Amino acid sequence: MITRPTLLLDKGKCIANIEKMVRKAQENNIVFRPHFKTHQSSEIGEWFKQLDIECITVSSVKMAEYFAANGWKDITIAFPSNILEWENINQLATKININLVVESIETIKFLEEKINSPIGIYIKVDTGYGRTGVKADDFVTIKQLLNSLKTCKNLIFIGYLCHTGHTYNTRSKKEIEAINKSASEQLLALKTFMASDFPLAEISFGDTPSCSVLNDFGDYNEIRPGNFVFYDETQYKIGSCNRNEIAVALASPIVAKHPERNEIVVHGGAVHLSKDTIKDENDKNYYGIAVELNNNGWDTDKVVGTVTKISQEHGIITVEDSVMNRINVGDLVAILPIHSCLTANLMKEYLTTEGKKITMML
Amino acid sequence: MITRPTLLLDKGKCIANIEKMVRKAQENNIVFRPHFKTHQSSEIGEWFKQLDIECITVSSVKMAEYFAANGWKDITIAFPSNILEWENINQLATKININLVVESIETIKFLEEKINSPIGIYIKVDTGYGRTGVKADDFVTIKQLLNSLKTCKNLIFIGYLCHTGHTYNTRSKKEIEAINKSASEQLLALKTFMASDFPLAEISFGDTPSCSVLNDFGDYNEIRPGNFVFYDETQYKIGSCNRNEIAVALASPIVAKHPERNEIVVHGGAVHLSKDTIKDENDKNYYGIAVELNNNGWDTDKVVGTVTKISQEHGIITVEDSVMNRINVGDLVAILPIHSCLTANLMKEYLTTEGKKITMML
Repeated sequence: MITRPTLLLDKGKCIANIEKMVRKAQENNIVFRPHFKTHQSSEIGEWFKQLDIECITVSSVKMAEYFAANGWKDITIAFPSNILEWENINQLATKININLVVESIETIKFLEEKINSPIGIYIKVDTGYGRTGVKADDFVTIKQLLNSLKTCKNLIFIGYLCHTGHTYNTRSKKEIEAINKSASEQLLALKTFMASDFPLAEISFGDTPSCSVLNDFGDYNEIRPGNFVFYDETQYKIGSCNRNEIAVALASPIVAKHPERNEIVVHGGAVHLSKDTIKDENDKNYYGIAVELNNNGWDTDKVVGTVTKISQEHGIITVEDSVMNRINVGDLVAILPIHSCLTANLMKEYLTTEGKKITMML
Repeated sequence: MITRPTLLLDKGKCIANIEKMVRKAQENNIVFRPHFKTHQSSEIGEWFKQLDIECITVSSVKMAEYFAANGWKDITIAFPSNILEWENINQLATKININLVVESIETIKFLEEKINSPIGIYIKVDTGYGRTGVKADDFVTIKQLLNSLKTCKNLIFIGYLCHTGHTYNTRSKKEIEAINKSASEQLLALKTFMASDFPLAEISFGDTPSCSVLNDFGDYNEIRPGNFVFYDETQYKIGSCNRNEIAVALASPIVAKHPERNEIVVHGGAVHLSKDTIKDENDKNYYGIAVELNNNGWDTDKVVGTVTKISQEHGIITVEDSVMNRINVGDLVAILPIHSCLTANLMKEYLTTEGKKITMML
């Protein structure tokens, strides 16, 4: 019996999402190194292990420590190396295979001085997202970084790592393909330019929209999508999934009705869903889509309404008259989140639709 | 030595914020029932106890359970009653004094049937915020609710509870005063109208902007501000505090520099600060203000830059050239959050500027 905001997880949908991506990587004959920042759960990690996944991606040293403690032996920390954590990195590197991401000479020099065991190094390359990384066509800087890596004892250059996060702003396959065509051309040009010195440099690539929509990963060596494990309303709008593939939903109790303005109030707010938003057809921000619960989970065909406002604990759902008439205070609705990574991170626990609790990193 | 995103708490500033509000309530001769949803910490709760605060406010039954377990004996759950949690409410009501908030006949009927011990009841009244509650001038509905409460055995009517959350959209004392003048007039008219039947009905009121800016609380019986314990950048912009009164800041390591676009990248993102934003002078959203750390905490006069973009773990801070030249990868900055309640809720732990760890509700 659910009485409070609870993050429901449909294990069947989740496993199907994982299997689909495993198959795609196999068909492309590339390494699948899923990003575990979305689920942050050792138990969900086991579902990957059962499909023979051995290499993973995380977004912090803390997360690497959590998954290393849960038996993972090959972890890429896909975040610009935080040199302040060198002692923790050293600890990890004595036990498992750790790969770091660098983008400056300063970081390389610092790590070479402090790190005592061999670790893999990717150069973070920016192909147009503009968040961080060295611009892919900045051959001068990249060559400097590579030259400084050459003389390092424990920093073993593996290749180039990129994240085309600007696919999150797209709303069609065409746009995603265009971003990837450009990224692929830039990465190939870079690889070719450096080929005489670094012929074996790999390309690590990955974001959920690209990995979901594309079928051919060309010259990439590995993919690192994360969000696909659950998907969410944003991915549905991008075209990465259909709504029925979204594997998590926030069960939220209805606590008040306001028929005069077509709003219901649920316990389910910013501390449950996060404040992340996307825009609807009228350019208005929304925070999730509420659907009806059923005996097996939730029914994406039975939309209750749109989460149009949110505060710390309150969610405001705008509903049509027909819905207002059939729902009551004390009913539960299931909210498909805008950003499942942030919702999972807030909830810190899942309840499967079969009634099993699944824990996460705290 | 801080090496990861860490929520710093300046205990001196925090205690000063608490003392100021305690004094204001004393001067107005009204009950101070602080909202504990902001800090969610039993240890910070003790600082209130030392100032003789005995009544508190929380925003969920779960939070009431946490503070009841930590010795609090008089708790108002200032959220529309979630009837699904009636068993937990019954448990609490056998041990401590619990007050609930209602706004519908359905909820009153359900609670009267299920609740076995006396609990206090407030009617949630809306004076213009429009989030939830019965409109203050809807005397017909309020009278219905009051009449149904009259016959209840365990639901003891206390008074009217309101939250003028629209003060958060203001940027001047004048606007806050206007909202409060209107709220006060509405509440007084309501009280007068119902006075023959309910002469002793109380008015519980409170939001941080109003309680910070106003000095005279008129006919109110109690105030329930929460955010004031830490304040944040939003409250600074509203005029509730000056920046130097903000008592929390996220220490964040710098991991990359992009001088060509005046941006630095820190480890400090949506899982630390939250995705809450306010608009700057140019109507652009921002996620926090970064300042320099010093030996005693942080220095609000030494602004590093503005957090202009954020993703799960990345924070992007826009800085001026002069700042770019003097900071380095591996330095720490302190980010004053946009919304300290959501930041605290995400971080789940404080480190005082004296080096002491303080835990929170998990």
